[in-house]
Amino acid sequence: MTDAPLDVVGIGNAIVDVLAQADDEFLATHNLPKGGMTLIDESQAAALYEKMGPGIECSGGSAANTVAGIAALGGRAAFVGKVRDDPLGQVFVHDLRAIGIEFDTRPAEKGVSTARCLVLVTPDAQRTMSTFLGASVALGPDDVDEGQVARAQVTYLEGYLWDLAQAKDAFRKAMKVAHEAGRKIALTLSDAFCVDRYRREFIDLAQHQIDILFANEVEITSLYQTADFDAALQQVRGHCEVAVLTRGDKGSVIVSGDEVHIIDPEPLPNLVDTTGAGDLYAAGFLSGLTQGRTLHECGRMGSIAAAEVISHFGARPEADLKALISDKLGN
Amino acid sequence: MTDAPLDVVGIGNAIVDVLAQADDEFLATHNLPKGGMTLIDESQAAALYEKMGPGIECSGGSAANTVAGIAALGGRAAFVGKVRDDPLGQVFVHDLRAIGIEFDTRPAEKGVSTARCLVLVTPDAQRTMSTFLGASVALGPDDVDEGQVARAQVTYLEGYLWDLAQAKDAFRKAMKVAHEAGRKIALTLSDAFCVDRYRREFIDLAQHQIDILFANEVEITSLYQTADFDAALQQVRGHCEVAVLTRGDKGSVIVSGDEVHIIDPEPLPNLVDTTGAGDLYAAGFLSGLTQGRTLHECGRMGSIAAAEVISHFGARPEADLKALISDKLGN
Repeated sequence: MTDAPLDVVGIGNAIVDVLAQADDEFLATHNLPKGGMTLIDESQAAALYEKMGPGIECSGGSAANTVAGIAALGGRAAFVGKVRDDPLGQVFVHDLRAIGIEFDTRPAEKGVSTARCLVLVTPDAQRTMSTFLGASVALGPDDVDEGQVARAQVTYLEGYLWDLAQAKDAFRKAMKVAHEAGRKIALTLSDAFCVDRYRREFIDLAQHQIDILFANEVEITSLYQTADFDAALQQVRGHCEVAVLTRGDKGSVIVSGDEVHIIDPEPLPNLVDTTGAGDLYAAGFLSGLTQGRTLHECGRMGSIAAAEVISHFGARPEADLKALISDKLGN
Repeated sequence: MTDAPLDVVGIGNAIVDVLAQADDEFLATHNLPKGGMTLIDESQAAALYEKMGPGIECSGGSAANTVAGIAALGGRAAFVGKVRDDPLGQVFVHDLRAIGIEFDTRPAEKGVSTARCLVLVTPDAQRTMSTFLGASVALGPDDVDEGQVARAQVTYLEGYLWDLAQAKDAFRKAMKVAHEAGRKIALTLSDAFCVDRYRREFIDLAQHQIDILFANEVEITSLYQTADFDAALQQVRGHCEVAVLTRGDKGSVIVSGDEVHIIDPEPLPNLVDTTGAGDLYAAGFLSGLTQGRTLHECGRMGSIAAAEVISHFGARPEADLKALISDKLGN
């Protein structure tokens, strides 16, 4: 047991990514909606893997990528998520602990294997994901350590988990504990299809439970069922304390009460693979926030971290993010 | 059974690489000779992995990387190597078959797990490897299919396998079958430490069994125990039919009877990770050779393939090598 303060605890799926290159025709043939995330079962995962090109394996999972980014930026982070006690699970655990992240969720000792996400990267650098949730589905409220949540300035929740009944209960417990301890709750909407499945619940969360909401343009317009970004912006403004809206190569917008910040995108030397862009934006933003920086600086930090991760394959930072940010922000 | 002709059959270790970044101090602390390959056992692998930073996993193995490069260049290739029937073994098999490589070696059903190579990449892009050979050690003469070797223009052997008694017998069988069928045998020396362990045997092979020898500067000078590259060049000239000597950023030299070709290095936009440089040079060279190209063109193809693989993490090509080469060679 420890009582060390934490900047962020992330709760999400514990997934190992398998990245491979593919073309649009391959996506069409296999009915994979480009840019989206499709849930698949173990036999579908095996069938798709069989058809995929050669891959590289690396730890992923949206909230896990975010806490990895926070650690890379010098923050103190923890992760809650469920692996199986199998080789892929060991890889996932290793990759978080190796960068100093507190990760004590007990692995499942039976049942399905560690979750895998088959990520197909098209020549335009877009990623299309097919996820076998595996052992992730076993995450439940018992895995949420009340003391750990209370130690963290921000508890960061991954919208993807809303697909799982037990995980929803884990979220509800985390939200209650965090707010009772005077802490903040952040949520990322994760995926437009995910928003579609739970629109009413997510709007209710945004209004009553979430302090900091992360969404990209497709997700936020889907949430409020409008085609117009500005219309969605006006709606979310009345809901959360802070809304962070990312718009790909159009930059990002941060809204908090009367404040609105428009952050231009970072110049991008080399676009290779967009996997992890949103996750690392959140990492940069939350790092800034927990360091007490202005919302404008938080947005810049998000943009810089996102630009780094999309300049190479894989969803976790490779470069020295801390140096990159102090270089670009001059502090 | 098939009787389709093959360009190259590669025989080597079936290894999954785990790549992580490290600094020189980490190498010193763990007694890892920079740029070299150290053999470790399963418990040493577990202990080192525990200390390493976060990694990415991708299929590797020297000869396997070479046949992957040959397939990427449009050649017909096969691989012989031993995995265990475990998840890492499945990854290894998938990654070769997914690019059309004939790979029918029966996986081991018991014993140690699939081989892993812990690759530490330092900021200067050098790679230092620690290899747990795992199921690879079970490769033996029974795994060499005489018909397959006889179908291949070139049988390519990985010097690393010389560490294993059964694999040596597999090599001897492959050399005999290939030569009886009027085919060529190629060998890569693999590693200066490996050359050190088997100098006398490798010289004997070079004189009597090997038609095409691949070595880098450190390996060839170690083989002939001289500090001078030119001295080693003169010695090897009298030994093999073709010797292909790579010199890193100094380019490469090809020697065959009276012919000597000096190939300047390719311009390199971005040096990231030297893992696989030698393997992909061999892929480009052997592709050219089996297409009946001149030795000069073979050398250029090797240089181009090597330059691609060192511009990103991992030891297998990511770019369209075939297009790259037809672009650069103009045919």
